Amino acid sequence: MSGVLYGVGLGPGDPELMTLKAYRLISNAKVIAYPTLEGSESFARSIALDAIQTDVEEIIVNIPMSVERGPAQAAYDLGALMIAEKLDDGKDVVVLCEGDPFFYGSFMYLFSRLSEKYKCEIVPGVTSVTACAASIATPLTARNEVLTIIPGPIDEDLLEQRIAGSEAIAIMKVGRHLAKICRVLEKLDLIKYAQYIERATLPNELVLPLSAAPKKAPYFSMILVTKGNDPWL
Amino acid sequence: MSGVLYGVGLGPGDPELMTLKAYRLISNAKVIAYPTLEGSESFARSIALDAIQTDVEEIIVNIPMSVERGPAQAAYDLGALMIAEKLDDGKDVVVLCEGDPFFYGSFMYLFSRLSEKYKCEIVPGVTSVTACAASIATPLTARNEVLTIIPGPIDEDLLEQRIAGSEAIAIMKVGRHLAKICRVLEKLDLIKYAQYIERATLPNELVLPLSAAPKKAPYFSMILVTKGNDPWL
Repeated sequence: MSGVLYGVGLGPGDPELMTLKAYRLISNAKVIAYPTLEGSESFARSIALDAIQTDVEEIIVNIPMSVERGPAQAAYDLGALMIAEKLDDGKDVVVLCEGDPFFYGSFMYLFSRLSEKYKCEIVPGVTSVTACAASIATPLTARNEVLTIIPGPIDEDLLEQRIAGSEAIAIMKVGRHLAKICRVLEKLDLIKYAQYIERATLPNELVLPLSAAPKKAPYFSMILVTKGNDPWL
Repeated sequence: MSGVLYGVGLGPGDPELMTLKAYRLISNAKVIAYPTLEGSESFARSIALDAIQTDVEEIIVNIPMSVERGPAQAAYDLGALMIAEKLDDGKDVVVLCEGDPFFYGSFMYLFSRLSEKYKCEIVPGVTSVTACAASIATPLTARNEVLTIIPGPIDEDLLEQRIAGSEAIAIMKVGRHLAKICRVLEKLDLIKYAQYIERATLPNELVLPLSAAPKKAPYFSMILVTKGNDPWL
């Protein structure tokens, strides 16, 4: 019988924000897998470190940095093959996923290659969106408010269109898109409601009003816009 | 010195989806607080049950069922007073919150009453949105897709406007709004992408294509629409 593929969410970064289930599955795992970018240290592995046993087998899916899709595609193909070999041997494989496996995660590229043939179980995790709301100590959404979650890389026009009219907005993956995002928020007169968060829940977390944010933002940064229109009970 | 108010997210329902931090804080708590609706059993308390110590003090914030805001407002006023008394005594108070405290939660009504005077810490939790995506084994969002999270009770016109053009949609608190939501999704030709989930991660979880959903939906139900437009790597 084939093993089970587990996609396990690890939360935003603080190891204590792992779920009990994630901790149990990783602690009991004989085989784990995780992505690295160009051979650098794996953020997912660093979150799960406490739970990883010393005798575990580790499958590293090494993703090359490239604007083209081909090299990454080949890396996921290879990763899926290495994982499939273990599953065929009847071993379960636990894939470590930053945040939540199905929320803007690279796990999907393994899932899409393996889920038809193998049994999969997804363990949801705390996303960076609610972690950032906790970090800025501001309720994200109440009652009948709509929340729009937007990746920073989308086109400026589309960004404006999606932001306009939303009660609460989370802009993910800010990185090199910071200037563009600021232009749009300025135009919509929303800068005053916007908070900037870097590396939420990690020891080097940074929380600032967007107006005071650094000019250069890392990939793991987010902007939350909460207009607080809800008439509190 | 005053105690600290903790707003602790418990995740969607499966007690194993509590975070390690939530479990630790509840296990060590001397005082916990949670809402109940008209004296019925607390869902939040049932999730946290394993972590709750026998000698803990419990503050019950009993919310009356009413379409008017006054009675609920008075109940939160009273709850905040009971919690403030403990905080003034130097005791920490751990408030048990279904899902995530700042994501459509009633914790905000206590937070808004207490956060100016007392130190607060928020512990984010797994939301029902990503839990439902895991339950239907379907990635929610990839790469540059926008996710719109919409409460079911909003007006039909606004619902249509918010759904149109989104790549992925989560409609929360479906309950008695099911027929209205189905009309809108039908009009936008999205029924075929829509899944219905009741009580995600609980033993009596129900997952169905929306077209096969029961006519009556409970409050804790959700509809996910994932068009899967992303060209997988």
